[in-house]
Amino acid sequence: MDRQKTRLEALKERLREINDLRRAAALLSWDQQTYMPPGGVGARGSQLATLQRLAHERMTDAALGELLEALRSLEVELPADADEAALIRVTRRDYEQATRLPSDFVAEVAEHEVAAYDAWTRARPANDFAAVQPFLERGVELSRRYAAFFPGFAHIADPLIDEADEGMTVAMLQPLFAALRAELVPLVQAIGERPQPAGAFLYQEYAPAQQMALGEEAARLVGYDFERGRIDLTAHPFATSFTTGDVRITTNIKAADVSDALFSTLHECGHAMYEQGIDPAYESTPLARGASAGVHESQSRLWENLVGRSRPFWQFFYPRLQAAFPTQLGAVPLDDFYRAINRVRRSLIRVEADEVTYNLHVIIRFDLELALLTGDLAVADLPDAWHERYERDLGLRAPDDRDGVLQDVHWYGMLPGGGFQGYTLGNVLSAQIFERAKAELPTLHDDIARGELLPLRDWLIAHVYRYGRKYSAPELIERVTGGPLRIEPYIGYLKQKYGELYRL
Amino acid sequence: MDRQKTRLEALKERLREINDLRRAAALLSWDQQTYMPPGGVGARGSQLATLQRLAHERMTDAALGELLEALRSLEVELPADADEAALIRVTRRDYEQATRLPSDFVAEVAEHEVAAYDAWTRARPANDFAAVQPFLERGVELSRRYAAFFPGFAHIADPLIDEADEGMTVAMLQPLFAALRAELVPLVQAIGERPQPAGAFLYQEYAPAQQMALGEEAARLVGYDFERGRIDLTAHPFATSFTTGDVRITTNIKAADVSDALFSTLHECGHAMYEQGIDPAYESTPLARGASAGVHESQSRLWENLVGRSRPFWQFFYPRLQAAFPTQLGAVPLDDFYRAINRVRRSLIRVEADEVTYNLHVIIRFDLELALLTGDLAVADLPDAWHERYERDLGLRAPDDRDGVLQDVHWYGMLPGGGFQGYTLGNVLSAQIFERAKAELPTLHDDIARGELLPLRDWLIAHVYRYGRKYSAPELIERVTGGPLRIEPYIGYLKQKYGELYRL
Repeated sequence: MDRQKTRLEALKERLREINDLRRAAALLSWDQQTYMPPGGVGARGSQLATLQRLAHERMTDAALGELLEALRSLEVELPADADEAALIRVTRRDYEQATRLPSDFVAEVAEHEVAAYDAWTRARPANDFAAVQPFLERGVELSRRYAAFFPGFAHIADPLIDEADEGMTVAMLQPLFAALRAELVPLVQAIGERPQPAGAFLYQEYAPAQQMALGEEAARLVGYDFERGRIDLTAHPFATSFTTGDVRITTNIKAADVSDALFSTLHECGHAMYEQGIDPAYESTPLARGASAGVHESQSRLWENLVGRSRPFWQFFYPRLQAAFPTQLGAVPLDDFYRAINRVRRSLIRVEADEVTYNLHVIIRFDLELALLTGDLAVADLPDAWHERYERDLGLRAPDDRDGVLQDVHWYGMLPGGGFQGYTLGNVLSAQIFERAKAELPTLHDDIARGELLPLRDWLIAHVYRYGRKYSAPELIERVTGGPLRIEPYIGYLKQKYGELYRL
Repeated sequence: MDRQKTRLEALKERLREINDLRRAAALLSWDQQTYMPPGGVGARGSQLATLQRLAHERMTDAALGELLEALRSLEVELPADADEAALIRVTRRDYEQATRLPSDFVAEVAEHEVAAYDAWTRARPANDFAAVQPFLERGVELSRRYAAFFPGFAHIADPLIDEADEGMTVAMLQPLFAALRAELVPLVQAIGERPQPAGAFLYQEYAPAQQMALGEEAARLVGYDFERGRIDLTAHPFATSFTTGDVRITTNIKAADVSDALFSTLHECGHAMYEQGIDPAYESTPLARGASAGVHESQSRLWENLVGRSRPFWQFFYPRLQAAFPTQLGAVPLDDFYRAINRVRRSLIRVEADEVTYNLHVIIRFDLELALLTGDLAVADLPDAWHERYERDLGLRAPDDRDGVLQDVHWYGMLPGGGFQGYTLGNVLSAQIFERAKAELPTLHDDIARGELLPLRDWLIAHVYRYGRKYSAPELIERVTGGPLRIEPYIGYLKQKYGELYRL
């Protein structure tokens, strides 16, 4: 047993070095998106590629595999619920996945992502799809090569999806998305037949500095810890973690829109509070991450929507917003504001979409990704395919690619495939977890209306965040909700909320 | 010869990886000093230690030594002035130095520096020397261990000095500093007997945002390239390079002082323009750095003082400053302003010191460092020793440690010993190089008065910056000035400028 303890320490020491390299890489990437001047991009690609390659070489070191093999007996002896058993299990999963990939390939991907992101930041404002087309073609090719390292898949996207949402496959997602669609399309239809509330007051001049201050106030309110984080500006908001002691978020403020940055900040706070809430004992190990992309997204959507777009939240926060913008909102009653931020409208931009239509945006992307990966759709034809799908599913056509296929960073900043399903999985799961929180926190509604969000955050820390990757997503969902992922709570939530709002 | 070419490529590939790791580490360090939240410090120490250790392991790899050995014949065959010959020569020097140090020691130093810097940022505002004392003791101990890896030194500080200013020793610096002192002390004395110009107008309320904008304007004016850099705020200003395409500076703005941040910005611009001006062909190799700490400092001081505190510079820039601060400076004539920014006063703070007394601050630190390293002075006695030396040399005693021994980051952010001599070497050299520039650019004075600084910057790129570390500091000085380092131009410059200002 003493030899096993030594081995466990040796394992942790190796994992710490790998973690240091990966978190350093994450900082280089954060810097690229926040403060790096244009001249830095070439060297940054090389630097990131080197760090990712070295991390990957260490993660695939045969000595690590031997340690994991030797630790099998310890894993069996330990209680199934022991942190150490989880560490060995999760590390083995990562090791087995990493050893499929050559380190040079990992470095190639890292370098590609820096260059593709850089091209995207210039191509989107210029509405220049041609400028990113070669990067996207390269991305698709890299995705295919990635999949090929995992032979035996049923669908070429499965290995990419599995990387983000372990165990999920196209074959599982397609019926789930179809069931959702079957509920959402008639709901959107029914809402479309009802009168729309006013909302023009949301789109006036709102000074960015005050928006930033309000975003920080909202972040503090929900329990994001600024001693262990900060907010910066980027083209596409994101959250990133360098340690549980330093988890940062970014936002993108629009001077003519008061709600976009605020909801996106609450969204990223959800991601960040998850990472801030992980048990510090897991620091420097593979356990110190969220359970899956879907579970992560459940937390961003929970804070953005189930809290952030709820009536009790605005009972507390709206007077603060009015005080910051008295000219714009002083005469707008809370009820009008609440209706405006929950307007359901077919629209062009995913991140600005309401809760009801949001998943339709995701499903379009998911389908297009699959078609790109299978080769049914050529990258050159993607802009048109995008417009066609938007016309078909949402009855809208973007005037250009800027608000079409260039709107999301995902296909440019990371490999296509496996990036979008987590959003819809997260929406579904957010309602399921929130239902449970309400049952266990009987005063939750009133707490939120009094601006007391910490009981909810602390419940989520205790039941979700602290565990990091200790439990797989299905295990965690089972533990928290008592059953598997299911869409009923989410559909029920939408029907009740929007049934009331639109008097359906 | 073809095999040598392959070897040279292999060498460059190895150097690129090492460079990537070191530049990534530099970004982590920049981030620690600019944006990192307090909770990030623990993990940052580990991350930096890992990156530095991996870089060092690669720099001391026996295979690198074998490559360098095999390349000796190529080095001899190449013209002495060939870039490749310089690359082999400089890499060998770095290899020989690096192989003295164990990688674990390098990691230990990196981790110490993060923790010590963090402690200093809190200790200085709190005037709490006791809080940094253990870190400083550890720093002294690490410095001694560093020196011990280079046995055979005449003075224990020599290996540390050699790391920053190759070839320099205590035995060479002490007579140089003594000769300077012999000139400076009577000059300070003579000036002290003359009436002082007014200067209170410099110390009014100057809005930080406007100071920042002016600093940026000044930086642009002298030729600092914002496409390849940026300015951020820190406790102690510095310049740092991640590639010649991304060289950043920082500043520290005081709301009650218009000149401090501006001169410090010009100072850091000098460092940064040096790094921006290095031949891009040297990118990712050990040649892509300044020749030595002293040469680097000659450029920061040249831009800060020989340009930035000159009359022609302010002929052009003062109307801009007045326009930004009309209430504070609208009624102050240029001549009064020029005299005020060149007032010679015994003062407590090195970075705010005038050109004449500045070196006295450096010499105090240099002497105290040597005493700490030899053990003649205990760290616990350092605050008192500091006050005593300031009383003796400058006739002043700081009211506390905040403006005493805690004022400079150097002993906390890096190992004590070898950090300060570069400032005075730089002052001396700045005048020597500027004298040469004036001789070769006959319209320099008028160019500066018209706000045309690029001819000077471009002359410096062509004669100094582009070469990076290709030439050693003595070689470079010889090439640029036609002779060795000498104090006469500097003393001559000071006597003429301050002789006029104070009518000596």
